[in-house]
Amino acid sequence: MFDLRPVGYVIGLLVAILGATMLLPMAIDLAAGDPNWSAFLESALITALSGGLVALACANGVDDRLELQQIFFLTTGVWIALPVFGALPFVLGAPEARAVDAFFEAMSGMTTTGSTVFAGLDGMPRGMLLWRSMLQWFGGIGIIVVAMVFLPELRVGGMQIFRSEAFETSGKVLPRAAQIASQISWIYLALTVACGFSYAAAGLAPFDALNHALTTLSTGGFSTRDASFGAFQGTPEYISSVYMILASLPFVRYVQFMAGTARPLFTDSQIWTYLSVIAIFVLVIAAYRVLANDDHYEHAFREGVFNVTSIISGTGYASTDYQLWGNFPVILFFFIGLIGGCSASTACSVKIFRYQILFSAIRVQIKAIHAPHGLFHPRFNGQKVDDDVLSSVTSFFVFFVVTLGLTAVLLSATGLDATTALSGAATALANIGPGLGEHIGPAGNFAGLNDAAKWILSVAMLIGRLELLVVFAILTAHFWRA
Amino acid sequence: MFDLRPVGYVIGLLVAILGATMLLPMAIDLAAGDPNWSAFLESALITALSGGLVALACANGVDDRLELQQIFFLTTGVWIALPVFGALPFVLGAPEARAVDAFFEAMSGMTTTGSTVFAGLDGMPRGMLLWRSMLQWFGGIGIIVVAMVFLPELRVGGMQIFRSEAFETSGKVLPRAAQIASQISWIYLALTVACGFSYAAAGLAPFDALNHALTTLSTGGFSTRDASFGAFQGTPEYISSVYMILASLPFVRYVQFMAGTARPLFTDSQIWTYLSVIAIFVLVIAAYRVLANDDHYEHAFREGVFNVTSIISGTGYASTDYQLWGNFPVILFFFIGLIGGCSASTACSVKIFRYQILFSAIRVQIKAIHAPHGLFHPRFNGQKVDDDVLSSVTSFFVFFVVTLGLTAVLLSATGLDATTALSGAATALANIGPGLGEHIGPAGNFAGLNDAAKWILSVAMLIGRLELLVVFAILTAHFWRA
Ligand SMILES: [K+]
Ligand SMILES: [K+]
Repeated sequence: MFDLRPVGYVIGLLVAILGATMLLPMAIDLAAGDPNWSAFLESALITALSGGLVALACANGVDDRLELQQIFFLTTGVWIALPVFGALPFVLGAPEARAVDAFFEAMSGMTTTGSTVFAGLDGMPRGMLLWRSMLQWFGGIGIIVVAMVFLPELRVGGMQIFRSEAFETSGKVLPRAAQIASQISWIYLALTVACGFSYAAAGLAPFDALNHALTTLSTGGFSTRDASFGAFQGTPEYISSVYMILASLPFVRYVQFMAGTARPLFTDSQIWTYLSVIAIFVLVIAAYRVLANDDHYEHAFREGVFNVTSIISGTGYASTDYQLWGNFPVILFFFIGLIGGCSASTACSVKIFRYQILFSAIRVQIKAIHAPHGLFHPRFNGQKVDDDVLSSVTSFFVFFVVTLGLTAVLLSATGLDATTALSGAATALANIGPGLGEHIGPAGNFAGLNDAAKWILSVAMLIGRLELLVVFAILTAHFWRA
Repeated sequence: MFDLRPVGYVIGLLVAILGATMLLPMAIDLAAGDPNWSAFLESALITALSGGLVALACANGVDDRLELQQIFFLTTGVWIALPVFGALPFVLGAPEARAVDAFFEAMSGMTTTGSTVFAGLDGMPRGMLLWRSMLQWFGGIGIIVVAMVFLPELRVGGMQIFRSEAFETSGKVLPRAAQIASQISWIYLALTVACGFSYAAAGLAPFDALNHALTTLSTGGFSTRDASFGAFQGTPEYISSVYMILASLPFVRYVQFMAGTARPLFTDSQIWTYLSVIAIFVLVIAAYRVLANDDHYEHAFREGVFNVTSIISGTGYASTDYQLWGNFPVILFFFIGLIGGCSASTACSVKIFRYQILFSAIRVQIKAIHAPHGLFHPRFNGQKVDDDVLSSVTSFFVFFVVTLGLTAVLLSATGLDATTALSGAATALANIGPGLGEHIGPAGNFAGLNDAAKWILSVAMLIGRLELLVVFAILTAHFWRA
């Protein structure tokens, strides 16, 4: 059995910090004279104290160097502990949510999924709305750090392909994580501030601008309005699209850019493929809207840009119920959601680089059929892809599809209809937000689902956010024996 | 450009033989005094003549040894030419079908899919019903030969794993194909006869017994009744289940068994895995029927056995509309259909052996995470799986999922609703038969779909039956350049 103390120390520290951040929404409610502020004070005290005590108890076991098991445990532990404490305000405060709803909402926040069980957002205390957005913002920065430091180390889902270009840690992951987190944080913060000011310039009220900036950069998708982004039609949709795309590009490129190396940002094949895919889908949707739905050009284009970007980046804002457009967009958006953004961003799902590698492998297969003795290798970004990376990527894909199927079956066993079960499983696992159908579609919310379904979806969000194998590896006997 | 004559010769010969077999349904209609017989005579003449002429024209280019391109071309060509001519009776005879419907039905037959566009089976001339069943039976034996001789040679979908145990051909595929076809044919025929007599003993009328024996052994699923197998409830369902399972086991084991080597049949991990998977799903469905639907034990068990076997083997008989059982069975059966039977059988879909290899690869991945310097290899049936096979299997899986998505999107673009589009794509690509929803569900048929959808589904059946890459490889520039 490995030493749990270094893990407990980091988790405790992060929980304590989370508790401290609860003072921000408290201040907002206090300033507005909303009695809901006390919920944040209570939550902050409980959270900071619990986290602090755990960190203290584990402080004598701290070590810069973490073993693989400890990293696995840490990653999964963080994404369970933070939602548990992050859910406290929802239980103690105005929504007076039951445990299952509060946990669902906090997990949906921290995993940047953005599915919500709260129906009356328009009447909710501002502190609560801000807290939801903050959870997503933290989740976003957290996952970038995990994707840049931990996943390449764990060699999960093919992320080791980014190992060399990212940052060799030789086991000393924690100091490296802290260093990268601080580099990334500045970029993430700067983009968020820029996004918020752009929203405000486009006419959003300061509070709406702030919240949507937080949930745009995290590709989270929580909104302050029941109508989601439908409340801000026009220019804000274009602004949002730009920042959703920026949030779903590889953050490692921004780090390189800031360090004076601009070239990788502009030559990354993953970025070009991603932008091309978006462009194609925007054209398809816009053409469909004009031809089949007799829509105006600008409106069709804007809706195309916004909704395609929202779904492919996994943000999940809804500006309209595209289920009303016809059958074609419904199915198309379902599959667009299974594409996803770039690696080491806040985006989720299978991700562009995995499709690039998988399609390259298929091309190689077809070549090899015709020339059985030739030696061909899949390539990515101009480089040969190692067998290790390739099998890691294909394992991820198979696991993703199989987990999607199992989750849908489990959800249907709780009584959900086929559309809700299948799209719910996909939206949770790919951390998108909205599903399909009358209940959880772009115009609906997750409030009406049964409790079992909410628990299943919460777990699916966690598994999906941590690229499946991080969580599943912990569940193997092998993990505990090693 | 490679020599098309050997390909033309074989296709011509097969088409001519197909024409000759049309005399059988002609005789049935003639004996019944049904004027429909003339349709078969006309079709037989056209078909035999066309095939004969092509074969003659190409006869001077015959060669035992086929190059890879020729094998690809032959395989795809057979599954296009035979449905084209097999569709003639539907156009000239009683259904007076339009070209699209006739081609759909014939393709659905030859690919052993079993989706039907004909609504009034109960009133159709017997010759027509028999012709549909015969198309499936030919398709079944055809695909076993292709899977045992051609696919391992083409190294498609990981089928090369069965190369050594199957039959090394060193290029001389045609004599080998003829030899294997004759070995297999006897087994296939014997099983069909046994199945037919069992059906008759269980009370089916001789004509129903014959037709259902033909479509059971081919896991095709065409029925002589609009109610499909719902017309034969009770003992026939158990009999059918047994033969559907026998039809979806690897036929190479039967060949070995007949040659006196019984051991492989009883130690094949693929077979044991397949039977275990069936047993688990039967228990789940039966338990659900008893607990959730208050069904009787025997009835629940029987429905579980029959429907699970029907869907996992890709036969697609319906004995009842399981969509009425609740949401859980709907989703469960959808995913059961994506599992499929064993290699080198008449079954379709992804198939058990690919899942075994893929899951073994995932286990290896997880082991490698914990021991980065260990050397682990996926295993299948006790043997190490080559990298070549593994990447071939994973390419197949990725291609299957992506093609499924694209087909569903295309179908929805023709106006189909999400459920029909997604389940239609799956049932065509996996050659199962029924889809989901009110139109193409177990109680419906494909008559009401638009023409574009029928063409798309016909192509999807072809692509699925030939394990995707056989068809796609032909569409690459590389294929024509080599
Ligand atoms: K999201
Ligand atoms: K079938």
